[in-house]
Amino acid sequence: MLSKRKSKYFKSLQLKKFRQSERLFLVEGEKGVLEVMASDFNIHTLLCTDVFFERYAKSIEKVPLHECILVKQVDLSAVGSYQTNDSALAIVHMPKEDITPFSSGLVLALEDISDPGNLGTILRVADWYGVSQVYCSHNTTDLYAPKVIQASMGSFTRVRVNYIDLGSWLKQTELPVYGAVLDGESVYGENLPKNAVLLMGSESHGISEQLLPYVQHKISIPRVGGAESLNVSVATAVLIDHFASARA
Amino acid sequence: MLSKRKSKYFKSLQLKKFRQSERLFLVEGEKGVLEVMASDFNIHTLLCTDVFFERYAKSIEKVPLHECILVKQVDLSAVGSYQTNDSALAIVHMPKEDITPFSSGLVLALEDISDPGNLGTILRVADWYGVSQVYCSHNTTDLYAPKVIQASMGSFTRVRVNYIDLGSWLKQTELPVYGAVLDGESVYGENLPKNAVLLMGSESHGISEQLLPYVQHKISIPRVGGAESLNVSVATAVLIDHFASARA
Repeated sequence: MLSKRKSKYFKSLQLKKFRQSERLFLVEGEKGVLEVMASDFNIHTLLCTDVFFERYAKSIEKVPLHECILVKQVDLSAVGSYQTNDSALAIVHMPKEDITPFSSGLVLALEDISDPGNLGTILRVADWYGVSQVYCSHNTTDLYAPKVIQASMGSFTRVRVNYIDLGSWLKQTELPVYGAVLDGESVYGENLPKNAVLLMGSESHGISEQLLPYVQHKISIPRVGGAESLNVSVATAVLIDHFASARA
Repeated sequence: MLSKRKSKYFKSLQLKKFRQSERLFLVEGEKGVLEVMASDFNIHTLLCTDVFFERYAKSIEKVPLHECILVKQVDLSAVGSYQTNDSALAIVHMPKEDITPFSSGLVLALEDISDPGNLGTILRVADWYGVSQVYCSHNTTDLYAPKVIQASMGSFTRVRVNYIDLGSWLKQTELPVYGAVLDGESVYGENLPKNAVLLMGSESHGISEQLLPYVQHKISIPRVGGAESLNVSVATAVLIDHFASARA
């Protein structure tokens, strides 16, 4: 049974200020909960229906958690952001922020991405291409917001995301910095290196004047038709794909 | 002044059955309305605020329309799907469905894309890359739904979309058919032709068993990391980009 007090407490984690003070966030739905159970994230509390519990009893047993509470669908909808959730919801500890030293490959840097769906989709893209490090400006939307977690389709468990002062970091990095702009060199002609930073700007303004000076290689996806721009998650995927195919 | 009767009538166009019987659809917001005014779509009625009217009086004058009604913001929100709209809303005639004979280039075929945001984003991608013909299966979500129009960012005015029996069409086309699958040949090694069909399957099931036999070239975007799949609009962009860069 889920007490009203607990239900209210867990629901409060839909808001950033409570997520930040409690260092906890919500993962909703069967697929997401199974992904987080299989990851090295630590689960605080698991809320699930009888059906979910019976189906995954063996996996649940293996996961160290503070508490597992059997609930009804209405409780899951009351706590979470999904209109319907007939399986499970996990309350998960945020990992400690520690900026892992750069190893090799492509590092993705995101400046002020504001749409949660875009950030989640970008993490899914990064995960697909094996980009394991993403650095976000402090004004980028919160990784742990329910919509980001949902759109990332479990990729948040595999991609390391850090919120940093992008300017300071770009200033000191020894990696070549590539930035997506509308009037840069065609990415089709670029000889892309194995190790690099790819910087993507915000949906509405692109890379800011403050960060442009750190971009050594301004690149663009050539436009043939009439659209003014590409969605930022789409553009990120196309550009990462060029880095990936150059290495393949 | 917008009468209650008219407001209700226009609002009904949020629903597919009324759009189809009236052959009219809604375009909301300043940017979208300006795009449709500049296109060869025919506008039935323009609802706009005083501010919009004064700012674009000259352009509005040039557009042949049945009626222009000055309204308040609350009227725009009442008719349309946007929570706030402080500029304009156009009620637009659907163009006649006529399947333009294929000229050259890449034709995009979409099977049962169900998410309006995905369809809109795909049209924006097609528009960016100059793909002017998109064929959708009948079960693909409706082009004229407000969310599709919004996500397409005006690209619906430049990309020709037809809903057809994809199976019959793929059976008779003389173009080589490329289809996106998870276990196909790497697109990195493909020698992609100038003229082709690119078939994308639905979000949840990919290309169906019914259509797979028409796919001569099963292609995939190589995966390095752990994500199970890419969002369909992202995958569409990456694959179209390969066709585009092969031609560049």
